[in-house]
Amino acid sequence: MNYREESLKKHYEWKGKIEVSPRVPVKNREDLSLAYTPGVAEPCLEIQKDESKSYELTRRWNTVAVITDGTAVLGLGDIGPVAGMPVMEGKCLLFRTFAGIDAIPICIKSKDVDELVRTIYLISGSFGGINLEDISAPRCFEVERRLKELCDIPVFHDDQHGTAIVLGAALINALKVVNKDLDKVKIVINGAGSAGIAIAKFLLSLGATDIIMCDKFGTLKKGKAEMNAAQAAMAEVTNKELLDGKLADAMKKADVFIGVSAPNIVSEEMVKSMNEKAIVFPMANPTPEIMPELALKAGAAVVGSGRSDYPNQVNNVLAFPGIFRGALDARAKDITDEMKVAACKALASLIKDDELSATNILPKAFDEGVADAVAKAVKEAALKNK
Amino acid sequence: MNYREESLKKHYEWKGKIEVSPRVPVKNREDLSLAYTPGVAEPCLEIQKDESKSYELTRRWNTVAVITDGTAVLGLGDIGPVAGMPVMEGKCLLFRTFAGIDAIPICIKSKDVDELVRTIYLISGSFGGINLEDISAPRCFEVERRLKELCDIPVFHDDQHGTAIVLGAALINALKVVNKDLDKVKIVINGAGSAGIAIAKFLLSLGATDIIMCDKFGTLKKGKAEMNAAQAAMAEVTNKELLDGKLADAMKKADVFIGVSAPNIVSEEMVKSMNEKAIVFPMANPTPEIMPELALKAGAAVVGSGRSDYPNQVNNVLAFPGIFRGALDARAKDITDEMKVAACKALASLIKDDELSATNILPKAFDEGVADAVAKAVKEAALKNK
Repeated sequence: MNYREESLKKHYEWKGKIEVSPRVPVKNREDLSLAYTPGVAEPCLEIQKDESKSYELTRRWNTVAVITDGTAVLGLGDIGPVAGMPVMEGKCLLFRTFAGIDAIPICIKSKDVDELVRTIYLISGSFGGINLEDISAPRCFEVERRLKELCDIPVFHDDQHGTAIVLGAALINALKVVNKDLDKVKIVINGAGSAGIAIAKFLLSLGATDIIMCDKFGTLKKGKAEMNAAQAAMAEVTNKELLDGKLADAMKKADVFIGVSAPNIVSEEMVKSMNEKAIVFPMANPTPEIMPELALKAGAAVVGSGRSDYPNQVNNVLAFPGIFRGALDARAKDITDEMKVAACKALASLIKDDELSATNILPKAFDEGVADAVAKAVKEAALKNK
Repeated sequence: MNYREESLKKHYEWKGKIEVSPRVPVKNREDLSLAYTPGVAEPCLEIQKDESKSYELTRRWNTVAVITDGTAVLGLGDIGPVAGMPVMEGKCLLFRTFAGIDAIPICIKSKDVDELVRTIYLISGSFGGINLEDISAPRCFEVERRLKELCDIPVFHDDQHGTAIVLGAALINALKVVNKDLDKVKIVINGAGSAGIAIAKFLLSLGATDIIMCDKFGTLKKGKAEMNAAQAAMAEVTNKELLDGKLADAMKKADVFIGVSAPNIVSEEMVKSMNEKAIVFPMANPTPEIMPELALKAGAAVVGSGRSDYPNQVNNVLAFPGIFRGALDARAKDITDEMKVAACKALASLIKDDELSATNILPKAFDEGVADAVAKAVKEAALKNK
């Protein structure tokens, strides 16, 4: 099937993928007096006295805003906020389908960091959580950091952390398959944008010790002029041997390759130059850094990608619904590192040891109970720190 | 029934009066590929090429934001944005119930006019229309005026224009009952806030010529120091005889009294001082300026109020669902005076001449076809000027 052509046709038929439905009947004067004036004055006054009551008297407890500025939509880049809306509606549809969350798509007509932060903060009282989506790096780092400081509800940039959490789970299980330890393997991450940096940080928090990041200019390395501030910060905590080189240089004797970059930039030779029992995650979408069959042919032991037509799909939908479900259920004020690690480990543990294999390191999007398991772990981690 | 007590109980049970529902099944990989990646890239690109496609490929064509800053919620005043949420959710529920519109409640944590305007403008690309709600006067005038200039979608402050339109329809029919002409009657409006000023402006646009407005300090009159800028502007186009006095002075020999002010401030004596066959609309809620039975006892020929337990309820729900339905259906870029007048006349004409009486000047909220009739008239008026 030509998905893009068929999807366009479907979108014209659908005329929107989500809608707002009533939860309360309004059939007569009495209904109106309870759901609206004059009765509604009383819940308003209750919330005025105690703002936390907004989680009991309105839909806030189950509502997440999916917010973009349209600057990094899918692989399409800066297509503008209104053009990003089909993705945001799709994400809201997934929030509802996989975790019963009421998600509201909002696009913001500004690329200015101050203005994005202020706008999102000012509307944040309407929601129980904020999922930032498709905001380009390096602006996304500051937008998220400042919103996490300002807001008393969870703020989560899924392109960073969702990807990192699912990839983390995939790596935990892939390492079990090849019988290597996270704190001993050499990991190369290609693509030092929002996803790549978030993956590196997250793997460090999981216990990885030897990471080299690359971008178009080659390895991230202390003092390199080409790096932006976010990349420079990563150079402080990665590439301890100060390797200066291209991706091909970095990949030599690596145990793990993680690509969040561009199609077809990894050759079979480069995979062959890795250590034995290499783990390869070429996640560029829709065309990976190296096609899975080529990576396997070149000797990789475990391969995962962003594609649903190959084994081991690293798919954000495994994480974000359960993460927000858990955060909302705990009424968490933030999504902490502990909650992310809990989500990752819960996801990894869904593949039992006797089912684990080189082609089965992650649950699939439609496996039963994925969001529930993630939500439970995230809620527990949230309540532990409350 | 104690509506407020019962409503609070119900709100705890409901846990939100609206929710977000899927319009598209996501049951397998193929569904996911069509509603989300990779397929969704194509509708995104279509909108990037032509932003108007957002009305065909997303839910924008049917979506209205209900936005408040919480400064003038019901009769409760400045209770804050989060405390206003039960009203906003209720309004969204009514949008859906009466006109099939997907309405999204948003509260903004700022009272600053510049910031309100900027915030609402920046998120306006997400919606097909904006219903401003419960923003206090005189800030609401500037917020609305500037947003109407900035946005290419309809912006409508319901507390002003919704009330004015329904009151206008009530007055048209009441004047038929007493056989007087709008361009000859003397009209007194008490309460020169957002609703009162909007009513005065709207009645002038309908053809009224003799209006006196009052506020706490007495009549609005050219040059009076107590007036704010919006009131001063109204003094230019009303009170042509420059009457300086209290409400009681203004009401002498008036044909129509309209109250959007405070409970129990009109006495029987004041109604008695009006012209014969007086029309009295004491709309303060829940307790009117004078109780309807007292106004009738004092000789008023037609009485309407904001209350659902008396005849002739002047209820915004008669107008706003149909107005936005019509504006959305016409894909109007604004809600113009012509569209408001069309809504008003459509509403008035729903009471046929042979049904018209002193106790039947307006349709009731649950009468069939009200929103449809208003929507049809508004859509026609919108398309005429397109």
